[in-house]
Amino acid sequence: MLVVGGGVIGLGVAWRTAQRGLSVTVLDPAPGQGANQVAAGMLAPVTELQYGEEELLRLGIASNQRYAAFAAELTEATGLSTGYRVCGTLATALDADDRAELRELYAFQQRLGLDVSWLTGRECRKLEPMLAPSVQGGLLVTGDHQVDGRRLGAALVEACLRAGVRIHRSRAARVTTRQDRATGALAEGGAVLTADQTVLAAGCWSGEIPGLPPEARLPVRPVKGQILRLRMTSAFGVPFLSRNLRAVVRGCHLYLVPREDGELVVGATMEEQGFDTTVTAGGVYELLRDAHELVPGITELPLVETGAGLRPGTPDNAPLLGPTALPGLVAATGHHRNGVLLTPVTADAVAAYLATGNLPPEAAPFAPTRFDRHSALSEASL
Amino acid sequence: MLVVGGGVIGLGVAWRTAQRGLSVTVLDPAPGQGANQVAAGMLAPVTELQYGEEELLRLGIASNQRYAAFAAELTEATGLSTGYRVCGTLATALDADDRAELRELYAFQQRLGLDVSWLTGRECRKLEPMLAPSVQGGLLVTGDHQVDGRRLGAALVEACLRAGVRIHRSRAARVTTRQDRATGALAEGGAVLTADQTVLAAGCWSGEIPGLPPEARLPVRPVKGQILRLRMTSAFGVPFLSRNLRAVVRGCHLYLVPREDGELVVGATMEEQGFDTTVTAGGVYELLRDAHELVPGITELPLVETGAGLRPGTPDNAPLLGPTALPGLVAATGHHRNGVLLTPVTADAVAAYLATGNLPPEAAPFAPTRFDRHSALSEASL
Repeated sequence: MLVVGGGVIGLGVAWRTAQRGLSVTVLDPAPGQGANQVAAGMLAPVTELQYGEEELLRLGIASNQRYAAFAAELTEATGLSTGYRVCGTLATALDADDRAELRELYAFQQRLGLDVSWLTGRECRKLEPMLAPSVQGGLLVTGDHQVDGRRLGAALVEACLRAGVRIHRSRAARVTTRQDRATGALAEGGAVLTADQTVLAAGCWSGEIPGLPPEARLPVRPVKGQILRLRMTSAFGVPFLSRNLRAVVRGCHLYLVPREDGELVVGATMEEQGFDTTVTAGGVYELLRDAHELVPGITELPLVETGAGLRPGTPDNAPLLGPTALPGLVAATGHHRNGVLLTPVTADAVAAYLATGNLPPEAAPFAPTRFDRHSALSEASL
Repeated sequence: MLVVGGGVIGLGVAWRTAQRGLSVTVLDPAPGQGANQVAAGMLAPVTELQYGEEELLRLGIASNQRYAAFAAELTEATGLSTGYRVCGTLATALDADDRAELRELYAFQQRLGLDVSWLTGRECRKLEPMLAPSVQGGLLVTGDHQVDGRRLGAALVEACLRAGVRIHRSRAARVTTRQDRATGALAEGGAVLTADQTVLAAGCWSGEIPGLPPEARLPVRPVKGQILRLRMTSAFGVPFLSRNLRAVVRGCHLYLVPREDGELVVGATMEEQGFDTTVTAGGVYELLRDAHELVPGITELPLVETGAGLRPGTPDNAPLLGPTALPGLVAATGHHRNGVLLTPVTADAVAAYLATGNLPPEAAPFAPTRFDRHSALSEASL
């Protein structure tokens, strides 16, 4: 079994697959150093909910429900913390328009039977005293938590090594095929890695990897996100923030993720800029402006780091899980904004497929071939 | 001769003094790495002008007039560029209030016989097409240029070494005295450096250095400045900006200094925070907000670096030059926002004093003892 890509998705799949007794190699020049290095690590399927994405919501909730056990198992296996924190999320509205939109989301969440409560602005500020006085109300979701994407990556590398996964530290030059079947990958440097099943978990590069026939190419594109890391100081009393905060400011989705170690992650822009990871004046400006509007006191906090990463975007914002059009090639990619959240459920589902040949039902809606069918249907109807 | 502090001021003094044949040692753990590392390097005495600071203006103009030759001599001596760039400065007004204030400054500059021209908003944008449409007018000062503070520091270190200056790479533990006279300094690590004359050029730390009797303590305090470095790309056509830009935005002095190598420096906050050099979310936010208001296109530029430095502030914003109340102790400090600009004139004046015992007339208004007299007068008039 070969996993091309050692981000949290690839490592999670490798770990779970090795636990099932299969022989696994991960091909990655820098395992654990994928988009998780930039991700905020918010585990927020309910507040992330968009209309028309109920199937993705179900997958996210399934993964979120496994997170406590997944993180505990990782820590037990490695001695490393993942930064998993049970804290809940407060999604806030800064003006009357935001409030109306958030009320609609609330109604939708209630129809779906989700555990959310509506709070007045005053109730929001009681929970989070640093919130701006302009906050009009909010949704409290007690089940949306957080994990530290960097710690998670490091723990998964260690867990893989302890479970017997081989890590080949090199870039994949291409996927290799023979007689219309994937046979592994050629590593830069020349090593040939052969495998019965090759898992493509190369994040935003999954759509670009050479060697695949056109029909097996995955519709994955990079979606740039810029993110800031601040440090919460004790100047305002402790704690500065106690839970994840979200808001939609001028149409941009803003979130603040306060970690127990004092880091405060502020994210994130959504930009279609190809493979560019430049931190721009405008990206940093917009994040600071919006965060300042939501939590004015952030101005006093040290700005420790700026960064940009690339989400693996797909046409419907949902991941690609399971067998592809090319026999022997299995997808575990396209997780867009939800890679960290969806790591446990992806790892379980793809490992189950590799071991048994059957994809668990929660992953069934995310077949990599769904766009082919759609495109065929569209053409037929023209 | 001992110079305590190897920023651009201390190095300039040391270089000029060694050129006069005196034996010079500079005491600094990291020579060339002072506030010049953070400074924008705008050489702008005319646009920096404040009411009541005519003497400082004269000193600034004197230094500015020497800069081309000073930079050329440094480059000839070392082979290193200083980034000196003849470009001029455009001071702009973003609204009617700014415009009224800038018109007053213009009238004042004209009374002083300075070479400035008033431009309409349209004329400003013709010179600098990236300027915001809201720019109401501006002052063009063709004599206000720029230098690269980092390159200047590196060139001065090299020039000092080539001129025979000894550099003792250690921090000054204290100034040493005997019988009411400065006798040199004790370095951390224990080295005793004795000297006839000890020049205190320790920037913002000049007011804190141990070993001085109270009457010789200099009234220097740190004034924090945060600054950004962007990179000008060719996305908008070349050049992005052609000259230094200034504006007063919401009472904050903003400047953009475009270097020939593509770096664009955006500065600077003015903060009374003691010796804190934390880069804060608020500092970066305000600089980006104000710069974006003046030049909207900056949002597309990479944000390469954020930083904070400490200016050596004094009660009247002017430097302390020449003999202090303690015989044997000479000041070359307190240059506040103008350290890079005032390096040539300070170096010349203090070297002349060290070699001849006479301070040149342009430096006379900046005696370190002026606050003692002032304070005595104030007390007498009470």
